[in-house]
Amino acid sequence: MSDTSGKVIKCKAAVCWGAGERLKIENIEVEPPRAHEVRIKILYSGICHTDEYTRSGADPEGAFPIILGHEGGGVVESVGEGVTSVKVGDHVIPLYTAECRECKFCKSGKTNLCGKVRTTQGQGLMPDKTSRFSINGQQILHFVCVFNSRFQVDGSFDILQYTVVADVSVVAIDKKAPLEKVCLLGCGITTAGALLQNNPASGSTVAVFGCGCVGLSSINTAKQSGHHAQTDPGYLVELTDGGLDFTFDATGNVDVMRAALEACHKGWGISTVIGVAAAGKEISTRPFQLVTGRVWRGTAFGGVKGRTELPGIVEDYLQGKVKVDEYVTHEFDFADINNGFDAMHAGDCIRAVVDVS
Amino acid sequence: MSDTSGKVIKCKAAVCWGAGERLKIENIEVEPPRAHEVRIKILYSGICHTDEYTRSGADPEGAFPIILGHEGGGVVESVGEGVTSVKVGDHVIPLYTAECRECKFCKSGKTNLCGKVRTTQGQGLMPDKTSRFSINGQQILHFVCVFNSRFQVDGSFDILQYTVVADVSVVAIDKKAPLEKVCLLGCGITTAGALLQNNPASGSTVAVFGCGCVGLSSINTAKQSGHHAQTDPGYLVELTDGGLDFTFDATGNVDVMRAALEACHKGWGISTVIGVAAAGKEISTRPFQLVTGRVWRGTAFGGVKGRTELPGIVEDYLQGKVKVDEYVTHEFDFADINNGFDAMHAGDCIRAVVDVS
Repeated sequence: MSDTSGKVIKCKAAVCWGAGERLKIENIEVEPPRAHEVRIKILYSGICHTDEYTRSGADPEGAFPIILGHEGGGVVESVGEGVTSVKVGDHVIPLYTAECRECKFCKSGKTNLCGKVRTTQGQGLMPDKTSRFSINGQQILHFVCVFNSRFQVDGSFDILQYTVVADVSVVAIDKKAPLEKVCLLGCGITTAGALLQNNPASGSTVAVFGCGCVGLSSINTAKQSGHHAQTDPGYLVELTDGGLDFTFDATGNVDVMRAALEACHKGWGISTVIGVAAAGKEISTRPFQLVTGRVWRGTAFGGVKGRTELPGIVEDYLQGKVKVDEYVTHEFDFADINNGFDAMHAGDCIRAVVDVS
Repeated sequence: MSDTSGKVIKCKAAVCWGAGERLKIENIEVEPPRAHEVRIKILYSGICHTDEYTRSGADPEGAFPIILGHEGGGVVESVGEGVTSVKVGDHVIPLYTAECRECKFCKSGKTNLCGKVRTTQGQGLMPDKTSRFSINGQQILHFVCVFNSRFQVDGSFDILQYTVVADVSVVAIDKKAPLEKVCLLGCGITTAGALLQNNPASGSTVAVFGCGCVGLSSINTAKQSGHHAQTDPGYLVELTDGGLDFTFDATGNVDVMRAALEACHKGWGISTVIGVAAAGKEISTRPFQLVTGRVWRGTAFGGVKGRTELPGIVEDYLQGKVKVDEYVTHEFDFADINNGFDAMHAGDCIRAVVDVS
């Protein structure tokens, strides 16, 4: 039992008060967890391009003020009644895709998209339809970036020092794993596991469009031939004698998504959309592309069921089978969080991690 | 050996001389088959909406004069050197999707789209780059309707009394099967086998959009719950508690294709495009539809490898497992072929079969 258990915690959060504005560190109050909730001391958080997309104001659905971030790592501070899956002191990664193991989706065996906390997540609330956050007495919604909204995610694990999540939205991992690295498994690197969903045969050709954290990690996941950050499908089709077996979009650009599909081999090529497109954008192609055997699909969080599978991915990381450290090119203190957002624009940053502690 | 073997045959063909014009029965000369070619006496031919699409002039890629038709049944009249797969007197169905068993596609085990005669088919020529047809001394291309062009099909089995096809583009079937019925296996009913490609689990929900020959046959193929000729995806999603497991477009309308995708269940729904869209038309959707687990695919000729699989489908028909007769609602003599095209517009015609003999 921690000495803060059951009490309101006063801590810091990085708040964006308006479109295009730089983040400001604010004091926030975080209530104790209620039944089936977990309060986490967040130590590190990665910054994703989706955070920047909202911060910049480019997202027409972005709402402010907003606390960005969805790639954290921390330690359980206290748990509410009925929580059995994690305990105080556990090292944990919050899950933007929950796994309740009870809903139609979890039971289907066909998808990692849990439906349990979907509705309240979309509203920025805990499952009991209330919030645990306030600033100067004003209630602040848990729901944060548009990425969360779009995926109807429990956004309550943003860039702040303490957060509260539903117990279905958090998983304990091996304490030997450095949280300043494996926080990236909360989004980018796990998302790149999309390739494995397609069970590629050995020797398959693979092209990944977009070489940020997700794209580069997809390539490592593949350990296959393809790394062609080339958006001319005609060129790729020629290069690969008819097209690629698998392509992946890790850009979020709908034109690139189309190019990735059309770079697939007639008869069997599979193109997977990983990137998050801007609101209102649509993908298009001639239906002939599908009728002649190409498949267009997508993935969220790499198809991974977080509570069941993430601990194993962490073990794979500890055994050197999954690369993570290589993607952390920049590290910043909480006070310098804006430099982390700037770094994404500089071109040499794969992932910046912020020390929130 | 027939007494016409090795000789030019003078016979009749239904020719459309210009966009929107009614077909005219013309005299045509058909040369003997060369090496690896088969000359067939066509007895019956179904009329498909794709034929009418070209005849009407709606297809901007349509070229005239043109001999329409791609759903025939006949008897082998003579064979060229090296032909071993069929013999004189065999009852056969010409295949608009060839099966050479030698090309990259045939060997892949992943698709029925053979590449062997693709290039010359698209040019309206036999594999040796010449034609076997002429009218009053003017060479007539084998390639005919845009459907063929679009699928890069060997179009040499159109509505005429004798035709010549490559030996990889024809399959012998059981003589007990009535050709005036099973000619429909050359396109419509086989195409409807698309459902089986998806290996639906028992009890899956299925919706088919478009209730012509392909759509209705898809429903029979399914023998499942779904028959909702309803293009409001919101309604279907509500009706099926979250969406359908499988949907099929058998309309060729790109807006319906989109509706079919969006009527699929989040997480696992698979939508298959069967219909042939008008030239230049594109399908669109928000990539979110794919990222949240829906799959968009297509099929040509039901994914069936014609030479390998069609004889078995004919056997299934003879054993009552595959319905065919039910779809032949209209029959016409060759001289009345235009009535067959008219019938398609009347609304009560599923398939019209023309007696070409």
